[in-house]
Amino acid sequence: MSASFCRPPAEAVEAVVSALGQRFGARCTTSQAVRDQHAHTLTWVAPQPPDAVVFPHSTEEVQEIVRLCAAHRVPVIPYGTGSSLEGQVNAPFGGISIDTREMNRIVAVHAEDLDVVVEPGVTRSTLNSYLRDAGLFFPIDPGFDASFGGMAATRASGTNAVRYGTMKDNVLALKAVLANGEVITTASRAKKSSAGYDLTRLLVGSEGTLGIITELTIRLSGIPEAISAGICPFPSIEAACEATIATIQSGIPVARIELLDEVAVSASNRYSKLDLPVTPMLFLEFHGTKAWVAEQAQRFGEIAAELGGGPFDWATEPERRSKLWQARHDAFWAALALRPGCSGLSGDVCVPISRLADCAAETKRDAAELGLTVSMVGHVGDGNFHALVVIDNDDADEVKRCKTFLKRMVDRAIAMEGTCTGEHGVGQGKMGYIGAELGDGALDAMRAVKRALDPHNILNPGKIFAL
Amino acid sequence: MSASFCRPPAEAVEAVVSALGQRFGARCTTSQAVRDQHAHTLTWVAPQPPDAVVFPHSTEEVQEIVRLCAAHRVPVIPYGTGSSLEGQVNAPFGGISIDTREMNRIVAVHAEDLDVVVEPGVTRSTLNSYLRDAGLFFPIDPGFDASFGGMAATRASGTNAVRYGTMKDNVLALKAVLANGEVITTASRAKKSSAGYDLTRLLVGSEGTLGIITELTIRLSGIPEAISAGICPFPSIEAACEATIATIQSGIPVARIELLDEVAVSASNRYSKLDLPVTPMLFLEFHGTKAWVAEQAQRFGEIAAELGGGPFDWATEPERRSKLWQARHDAFWAALALRPGCSGLSGDVCVPISRLADCAAETKRDAAELGLTVSMVGHVGDGNFHALVVIDNDDADEVKRCKTFLKRMVDRAIAMEGTCTGEHGVGQGKMGYIGAELGDGALDAMRAVKRALDPHNILNPGKIFAL
Repeated sequence: MSASFCRPPAEAVEAVVSALGQRFGARCTTSQAVRDQHAHTLTWVAPQPPDAVVFPHSTEEVQEIVRLCAAHRVPVIPYGTGSSLEGQVNAPFGGISIDTREMNRIVAVHAEDLDVVVEPGVTRSTLNSYLRDAGLFFPIDPGFDASFGGMAATRASGTNAVRYGTMKDNVLALKAVLANGEVITTASRAKKSSAGYDLTRLLVGSEGTLGIITELTIRLSGIPEAISAGICPFPSIEAACEATIATIQSGIPVARIELLDEVAVSASNRYSKLDLPVTPMLFLEFHGTKAWVAEQAQRFGEIAAELGGGPFDWATEPERRSKLWQARHDAFWAALALRPGCSGLSGDVCVPISRLADCAAETKRDAAELGLTVSMVGHVGDGNFHALVVIDNDDADEVKRCKTFLKRMVDRAIAMEGTCTGEHGVGQGKMGYIGAELGDGALDAMRAVKRALDPHNILNPGKIFAL
Repeated sequence: MSASFCRPPAEAVEAVVSALGQRFGARCTTSQAVRDQHAHTLTWVAPQPPDAVVFPHSTEEVQEIVRLCAAHRVPVIPYGTGSSLEGQVNAPFGGISIDTREMNRIVAVHAEDLDVVVEPGVTRSTLNSYLRDAGLFFPIDPGFDASFGGMAATRASGTNAVRYGTMKDNVLALKAVLANGEVITTASRAKKSSAGYDLTRLLVGSEGTLGIITELTIRLSGIPEAISAGICPFPSIEAACEATIATIQSGIPVARIELLDEVAVSASNRYSKLDLPVTPMLFLEFHGTKAWVAEQAQRFGEIAAELGGGPFDWATEPERRSKLWQARHDAFWAALALRPGCSGLSGDVCVPISRLADCAAETKRDAAELGLTVSMVGHVGDGNFHALVVIDNDDADEVKRCKTFLKRMVDRAIAMEGTCTGEHGVGQGKMGYIGAELGDGALDAMRAVKRALDPHNILNPGKIFAL
């Protein structure tokens, strides 16, 4: 562990906390409860609270905080809603958590340009409620009501990504405070540009290690004229994956195509009060004009039938649609409810779609072999799936088997030319896998970029890779 | 001009050229004709030939060349087909041009995953011919038959970008040789990933200043079941732009929507032997199923009629379609043919689409005021347009007026929250505009990244920004 990863001296932290207290009053707190809350993670990653939490109101205030911390070499950890899954908001070396919840203004809506400027604390559902009357929406839906700052920082995606892309595709421009306290604007509002290095995409997915995002210009989409959703049972995970591959290859622009294995279906039946047949299932959604969604649904139905799936229940009623998607989004909680008192791990890999059926099936067999409770769900149109493992953290042997399972899952995905994380990011949970996935050359290049932009390693240290 | 921008000492260049000659034999040349060819530019940018040109066959050979040049601090300039428009292939400080034309293998086609692995010298049309039987195609079409290395390096886009995105959206992963001679792989073949910094997008658009691309994994699309193309006249540029805005907002997924002003139409009539009415015109293309393209075309026709355009001539015959698109792609040559013996400048800006009509109309007025011959074409669905200026380089006053025109065009776009280049890149022609567009913070961050990855500034020096 290099010197840059040491906890700063107590005097440095005290100096920063005291100055922040004077400057921000009640908007800076060292209360144990608030600090614990800011290190809360949704998964089995152990919490590591910061030394203090500050709630800035503007880019300039973030600048002040970063400059103060930089002067004392005290870590800065950005915080959105805390829904990240790999320990991204933890403070392994202490430091100041910058909670952006009060930077929650929708700065400007440009309906004609299909874009909006927001502060990082605005959440997805807040924006979509605000936009409804304009006939516009923000399509990315990671399942939680995450903040835009957090979604950009982790390169989030979710159920709609197969049609609308991920955060990398939907952020037009960012404003961010760098480690040196300077504010940068990464791009104009133009839909495309070839003006120099793509700083927008460099920050998207950097998990707060290169800059603190203080404003985002986001692409919007028109609310489709017609939306139809449907569910389709399959005899096996392999058949469901094959149907997904055929659907994508045939060019049907599915808006969502989500897999639930029989464990996830059963858990959802219980948790979300559904009565689905307990077998692998695809949940789908089509967007377009009325005639066009009908054509898409019909074509998918034919593909499913050919691969032994179906009947394809094509439920257009908005109420049933909402209930099904809520159940899909609650799959993590439904899995946890299988073993009350346990914690969860949401394994996240992504492979070329041709390898999806193999990868998912092998992962399932491995879970059975290791005697773990695993529910599987996936954004299968992108080759991305999650193994939701329910763990008794007090059972040392189970924890050990869980670690084995996770490592094998990642190794398997990498061996299949996939990635160690499709959308949850690296954080602390996946540190050490980038080298295995991309080799030392890429890792060294990432480190060189990090050192160039944050030479004292004050921005979210201890995440993504060791320096 | 900093020390890092000086031409290397003659002995250093001689040492490199001599070693390359020994190593590569006839694949290394100092012939004046070949050197001149490699500094040839399509526009008014003056040529600056390299000291030698090498034709490597593999990533390892590129590594050797870069290591040798790095040891002697001699510049390295990557070269694809030389169709860049802003002097990207020039060698202002001399050095070695790496021509990738013999790295032209299609390494692997993954039809099921809709991706392909190619060497950088493969061109767009070569790949599309190769893929035709597989029912797949690569959608990005910058007009020239450019190489994949070059298209990625300049973040190219073109007519299909409104539907299929730009190179940033269609490169899955890259292999590249960095200034230190190390090879990096930027990503896996997974369709999405959150595994660390987005090195792929950092290299895409870096114009050879951060690494030499030696292999690309590229996304493909299925050849649409039905394609229909059409042309639609409008009474004014404003009306054509308004129709474009309404089309995009209404969610019609046009595959192409291209503007030609009356000068461009007239030039195309002459050059491409067409008989179009001499008035601003939109060229469109729709992709989808038979029923779906018909619905899209009908909806567009309604929008056009409402805005005073039409009749919308919806020509589905492949032959006429090819002829029209060839004419659109030849617009640059058609403009040059207006004044034989003159050279051209392809002004390239991109603005939020709501400002497109204003920006295009003001640019047209400005051309008239300055007495310049300007033909305008644009990828207007993205808010991107080109002013093709035909210049007599021997007329000092005209050259001066042309520079004024270009500066005003860029300033206008930036004032409208747009970018100084939508797709041609910065090269030499647009140096100095990034700071105006994004501010010094972004420029400093780009410089920091460049210095971190290329401390001796050997990779394509004198491009994008001054160090």
